Amino acid sequence: MINKERVSKRLSELGEIGKNQETGGLTRHAFTKEDRLAKDLVAKYMKEAGLTVREDAVGNMIGRREGRNPQAPVVLTGSHIDTVCDGGKYDGSLGIIGALEVLQTFNEQGIETEHPIEVYAFNDEEGSRFSFSMFGSRGVIGDLKRKDLEMKDKNGITVAEAMKAQGFDPERISEADRSREAIKAFIELHIEQGKVLESHNLSVGIVSGIVNELWIKCTVQGEAGHAGATPMSMRHDALVAAAEMVQVVDREAKKTGTTVATVGRLSVLPGGINIIPGTVQFTLDLRDTSQEISDRVEAQIFKEFDRVCQERGVTLSTELLQRIPPAPCTEEFRQVAQKACPEAGVPYFSLPSGAGHDAMQMINICPIGMIFVRSKDGISHNPLEYSTLEDCADGINVLYHILLDIAVKA
Amino acid sequence: MINKERVSKRLSELGEIGKNQETGGLTRHAFTKEDRLAKDLVAKYMKEAGLTVREDAVGNMIGRREGRNPQAPVVLTGSHIDTVCDGGKYDGSLGIIGALEVLQTFNEQGIETEHPIEVYAFNDEEGSRFSFSMFGSRGVIGDLKRKDLEMKDKNGITVAEAMKAQGFDPERISEADRSREAIKAFIELHIEQGKVLESHNLSVGIVSGIVNELWIKCTVQGEAGHAGATPMSMRHDALVAAAEMVQVVDREAKKTGTTVATVGRLSVLPGGINIIPGTVQFTLDLRDTSQEISDRVEAQIFKEFDRVCQERGVTLSTELLQRIPPAPCTEEFRQVAQKACPEAGVPYFSLPSGAGHDAMQMINICPIGMIFVRSKDGISHNPLEYSTLEDCADGINVLYHILLDIAVKA
Repeated sequence: MINKERVSKRLSELGEIGKNQETGGLTRHAFTKEDRLAKDLVAKYMKEAGLTVREDAVGNMIGRREGRNPQAPVVLTGSHIDTVCDGGKYDGSLGIIGALEVLQTFNEQGIETEHPIEVYAFNDEEGSRFSFSMFGSRGVIGDLKRKDLEMKDKNGITVAEAMKAQGFDPERISEADRSREAIKAFIELHIEQGKVLESHNLSVGIVSGIVNELWIKCTVQGEAGHAGATPMSMRHDALVAAAEMVQVVDREAKKTGTTVATVGRLSVLPGGINIIPGTVQFTLDLRDTSQEISDRVEAQIFKEFDRVCQERGVTLSTELLQRIPPAPCTEEFRQVAQKACPEAGVPYFSLPSGAGHDAMQMINICPIGMIFVRSKDGISHNPLEYSTLEDCADGINVLYHILLDIAVKA
Repeated sequence: MINKERVSKRLSELGEIGKNQETGGLTRHAFTKEDRLAKDLVAKYMKEAGLTVREDAVGNMIGRREGRNPQAPVVLTGSHIDTVCDGGKYDGSLGIIGALEVLQTFNEQGIETEHPIEVYAFNDEEGSRFSFSMFGSRGVIGDLKRKDLEMKDKNGITVAEAMKAQGFDPERISEADRSREAIKAFIELHIEQGKVLESHNLSVGIVSGIVNELWIKCTVQGEAGHAGATPMSMRHDALVAAAEMVQVVDREAKKTGTTVATVGRLSVLPGGINIIPGTVQFTLDLRDTSQEISDRVEAQIFKEFDRVCQERGVTLSTELLQRIPPAPCTEEFRQVAQKACPEAGVPYFSLPSGAGHDAMQMINICPIGMIFVRSKDGISHNPLEYSTLEDCADGINVLYHILLDIAVKA
């Protein structure tokens, strides 16, 4: 249905911009020369796809295909143009090139839609330069604040300064805000960045929702002591307690079947081979597509942590690092996708998105939907990131049928 | 019996040498000016106690009280003169000043002994300067090797260079070797550096033996992954596995009632909040006074580690850092101590030494015995290290009766 060769050529071309010849990885950070070159190339593709191109006030490149009814709520699609440091050529790019491919195919097939469709190449989703993610989509939902523009990169350059250097006016960021307009939906095609599809031997999956992100820093305070001179019965070993907590996290997350919970950082003080740990700090990352389940697991984990503290004679203090709510895809999207998948020749399979995406911002102004394409070995944010052309084509074909369904109908 | 005021005065005086006026802690490293001053002061005390003073080829200061039979096997006592960085004034010093007090009291009471008695102020037990401990007592047992003299301090000065700077000849270290002489026993008085005596409300304890020291570095290899995109069922989380191993260590050590086992260091890679740990390194410190029990617990721990690896789909590699055998005190010493304690007015109570001491070296050439004095809050290697004068006096009185028993009899 879609033109695989064109997709392949564009992925390769775009995958050259910001490429490190040694590692093969891409580095395209916001408001840099590479970012500019990539967006200009995408603008060229947009024109080739017959779209009207514009760049908004926060640096999103947008291509519009008019609907039969230009006043009908607009259907948005696309993904991000930036990459992490030394990332891959599918993350973000696939969603842009795939969406353009769908619209170019519509043109070639003479398909008209009731609703206008716009492809967004979002600026700065990864947040790698300013440690502030989803800048472009935050602009679209009207969530950018003046102080967000004061975030600095490692050279001390602020977002505002970087914008000016590229000809943007930081005073005008509110012009990118689409929250007051009628938006029918936002549909994003993206690589999975995990191994679920691979383990099920499937090329494509339909996202049930984007999980929440709960990050908590935990500090266990026990009592340091001499590893030789302190009998086991007299210890308040912070690491033994923390180790039990790590087990609790693993056990409680597994109970639901949907939750993921991770202790990714853990440090031990004083940290001598022959010293009983007095203090342990660790982080908890807890996610679920259901806020209710996440809340329940969180409560259960901390109830168990309290028990561990009591039993081990240690204390626990916590610091909330972030609490981002989940972004569920709508039931309507699920129904559309259940029809679109067999039409595109792939089985319908639903999975949560464990990673954050621009769709997490977009849900604030419209219903969202996401399509995942299988990632080889689950690898992403790495030069080894890879999805086969066949898998990419499957994902684009699903997007084709979904956009057709959503945009064609009045 | 003994002169508490004299003990107090000498502890205070010796406790001024190397003192940091800000922290109140002592720093007396081997072959430094402070070390020299401290040994000279001890030599003065030795003379006051009526002893014949000499310094051996490795820097141990020795005071000898002749026996009725100068050819009879000599009884050795004493402890170390050096301190850790910012340490306390009881660690080591108490065993020297206590032994001198006993012999000075013998003189004052006109007590003669069959066996000669010598008080050692051992050089460099802590190993804080050259990362090589028990230098002085290793010299006494003839265990120093030429390459040990090549160990460097943080300024790149070797042991040999430091010795020469203090007028010692590194070529003559073998002259300190007592291993070819008849030694009846070595009895060391020392602070406990733990809380066992305090928890039993006892001033003094008799050491059953010095534990072995088994140090193993363990590396758990799992699989890193995205904390959001990897379902619990697909994980090989190195930290969850390591946490279970930490629990195993705690559980298995507790089973014997005598073993102590500690995971004192643990590091997680890659160490991102949102990344499943791929690699965890941790250290195991395992000790018991019985080599057999230690071996059994070690075997059981690693059997359990294997089970964890199987269940969690991770691998474990290990590196032996050190394996020092235990140094049991003899049954004969126990019998002498059981009599000496009530004579000194304290109950007999036996406990293992979890820390290493010069006696661990001395056991290679003679039977050993150790007496512990209660440490306030178990604190040592710290300016807050403290034992009451009454507790110190109790310990010295026990040493008095033990030396009387061992040295008086033919």
